[in-house]
Amino acid sequence: MNEIKIALLGLGTVGCGVVKVLRSHGAEMSERAGCPLVLGRVADTDLTRPRDGIDLASLPLVPDAGQAIDDPSVQIVIELIGGLEPARTFILKALAAGKHVVTANKALLARHGVALATLAESSRVALNFEAAVAGGIPVIKTLREALAGNTVRRVYGILNGTCNYILTTMRKTGREFADVLAEAQKLGYAEADPSFDVGGFDTAHKLALLTSLAFGTRTSFESVYVEGIESITPADIEAAGELGYRIKLLGVALRTDSGIEQRVHPTMVPKHTAIAEVDGVSNCVAIDGDFVGDVMLIGPGAGAGPTASSVTSDLIDIARGHILPPFGAKAKSLKLYKKAQMRAHEGGYYIRLSVYDRTGAFAAIASRMADQGISIESIVQRRPRAELPGFDRPHKGSPAAVVMITHQTTEAAIRKALAAIERDGHVDQKPQMIRIEKL
Amino acid sequence: MNEIKIALLGLGTVGCGVVKVLRSHGAEMSERAGCPLVLGRVADTDLTRPRDGIDLASLPLVPDAGQAIDDPSVQIVIELIGGLEPARTFILKALAAGKHVVTANKALLARHGVALATLAESSRVALNFEAAVAGGIPVIKTLREALAGNTVRRVYGILNGTCNYILTTMRKTGREFADVLAEAQKLGYAEADPSFDVGGFDTAHKLALLTSLAFGTRTSFESVYVEGIESITPADIEAAGELGYRIKLLGVALRTDSGIEQRVHPTMVPKHTAIAEVDGVSNCVAIDGDFVGDVMLIGPGAGAGPTASSVTSDLIDIARGHILPPFGAKAKSLKLYKKAQMRAHEGGYYIRLSVYDRTGAFAAIASRMADQGISIESIVQRRPRAELPGFDRPHKGSPAAVVMITHQTTEAAIRKALAAIERDGHVDQKPQMIRIEKL
Repeated sequence: MNEIKIALLGLGTVGCGVVKVLRSHGAEMSERAGCPLVLGRVADTDLTRPRDGIDLASLPLVPDAGQAIDDPSVQIVIELIGGLEPARTFILKALAAGKHVVTANKALLARHGVALATLAESSRVALNFEAAVAGGIPVIKTLREALAGNTVRRVYGILNGTCNYILTTMRKTGREFADVLAEAQKLGYAEADPSFDVGGFDTAHKLALLTSLAFGTRTSFESVYVEGIESITPADIEAAGELGYRIKLLGVALRTDSGIEQRVHPTMVPKHTAIAEVDGVSNCVAIDGDFVGDVMLIGPGAGAGPTASSVTSDLIDIARGHILPPFGAKAKSLKLYKKAQMRAHEGGYYIRLSVYDRTGAFAAIASRMADQGISIESIVQRRPRAELPGFDRPHKGSPAAVVMITHQTTEAAIRKALAAIERDGHVDQKPQMIRIEKL
Repeated sequence: MNEIKIALLGLGTVGCGVVKVLRSHGAEMSERAGCPLVLGRVADTDLTRPRDGIDLASLPLVPDAGQAIDDPSVQIVIELIGGLEPARTFILKALAAGKHVVTANKALLARHGVALATLAESSRVALNFEAAVAGGIPVIKTLREALAGNTVRRVYGILNGTCNYILTTMRKTGREFADVLAEAQKLGYAEADPSFDVGGFDTAHKLALLTSLAFGTRTSFESVYVEGIESITPADIEAAGELGYRIKLLGVALRTDSGIEQRVHPTMVPKHTAIAEVDGVSNCVAIDGDFVGDVMLIGPGAGAGPTASSVTSDLIDIARGHILPPFGAKAKSLKLYKKAQMRAHEGGYYIRLSVYDRTGAFAAIASRMADQGISIESIVQRRPRAELPGFDRPHKGSPAAVVMITHQTTEAAIRKALAAIERDGHVDQKPQMIRIEKL
């Protein structure tokens, strides 16, 4: 039983998690993999900073990733550096040398995944990335293998733990976005520069990968429509609750007649559904397949343990000789991505307007909606309340919050109606608009 | 690209589903599998009954399963006959002839899985059974592959759609068990003889398989502690709701210091959790791994489409050359199952008593609980209410319902306390006891 030697690039939080799994479960993993998996090289630019729970002196450390990859005994390279460069160069080097690669690098794969997959396939090696999407949730394997007998209609999910933590805490405490974000930063749930997470871009990277796996299309991160959660107010969260919804930042990829919709935005999901109960830093991914129906996976979306769990699953697959094209279908057979226009998106909408209390305002708003053929399912007018930021804006004319839920309509119609309402001057701030996802 | 020929044994609902997947997605499946998957033989004892949406004349029908297996061009046998015999004989025959087997037969695997796995391994063929547990939910692959880097502490889930449909409908309508069961039978959600489902045995079969996969132990269906849902009343469901719980029939397998607990029983799960929102005929499986944490999979637990989805995933794995030992670890390395005694089970309990309204009854009950060292978290006394069957029993002394939630205690202590309470004669019916599962 020949052992398999691994080079680990990047000894950060996740890298340390991988070391711990290999050390604590070595025997079971060898049993499952059919041979011992051995850390042959561990490369990091900082070999002195202490790592919690790991004796650095016991690791085969090298300061240079290139050196680790070049080691002829190394058969698998785990890339946990993150970012585009130098991670991309290292992965290219490893694949070109005929070494399997396991990575958690969603940003890189969302931009260069197809090129890297092409190289992996021509080198007849694996490029596995279970850890790149939704942490410990085995969604890559589920799409690539478990649901391979299905035509997928839609894949969507809560893909960013930071945003979900913030929205959950806002709901439970009634506090404002900025306040909760600051707390999340203190707790280490949000980065010092949070825009990548709260702006929806991290979700978009992950969604682009899910789209390729689900629909067999070339990755197209640039085509993802992205809105973050910065504009969500406690007033929205409370109104959503009263109307029977919760607000989640979702990534949604949908097959439509005019192409594929990829969108990331705050979304109203019905209460009393499993996705509505996915709270805190948890993630989830739902897949609608034509034969299987709706399947949902829930679990920890980040962290050393869950991510390391996904990395080791990828390692064991390689050791077992289970090598698949990275995107399920061969890279050259991936179809060109055909983008559906966001303006053609159809669905229900939540609209919150801050309306001046004067004669005719309501009628004008209603007629602007009617002009676009939008029909209203429910409408609630709310007086300003001091404890609800977003509803309470001292202003002459004493604006009141008006919350509407529309029936099915198009994004284009909603945008036109809201623009007209703003132009009419009956509202004192930009209308809030949140899409409703049918589950 | 050589095609792979398949023999399908059993053209019932699921068998027809498999035919439909192979016909509608043949091209994509060939692409993913690396070669065409072709139905070479379809065997059923009834070749004349019309099958919805399938032209029987277009199928390579044979009346005899043995004949289908013997066809030298057949490489994979799909067994969808169900039950112990003749399914077992056919599977043994196929494995002995060096043919891969895909089956949905949980009853057979729960009893003879290890023996069949041993034969499959010695014949170097697959024995795949994704469809045997939780329908379309890819839980076998998740345990066998995706979470292979984890030591699993617990696996549990809602594994029977009939029971979940009945409990959900009872909650939503306030109706009695027998009434809802009769409706489920009319709708085709429950069998004419429902005891196998509502008695918990179907769940126990599935749980026994999950246990082996999760803990690497030999399958031990006989060791599963089984209670069904027949004793659940609308009163229990309403009281559970008021106390913040929902009642689900769970299968739970837990690694403890004294061995492995396998139990199937109605269970209180906290509201506002994803599992509490798994309603109707849906199933779910939760897995607690030491590195990944808690992962949950939700989806359709039965039906032609979901089950066929799982069968085709198994087929594609085989075509891709991805052959694993059926239980993840090799059959001969599966550990002997060491049973934890049910009396040692620890947890919180829901107790409902129908107590005669007389002086001293309460004190006697409280002291019986205290005798066993059981402390009470909450207690609610309820007057009989006409609209709540189970609370409303015309009886001299006018018994009142007393509902208690206990703190953590042992099964042995609860059983002793309840036996003593019954002996004391203060209650007019057998006490109701429902275990609470910590999530």
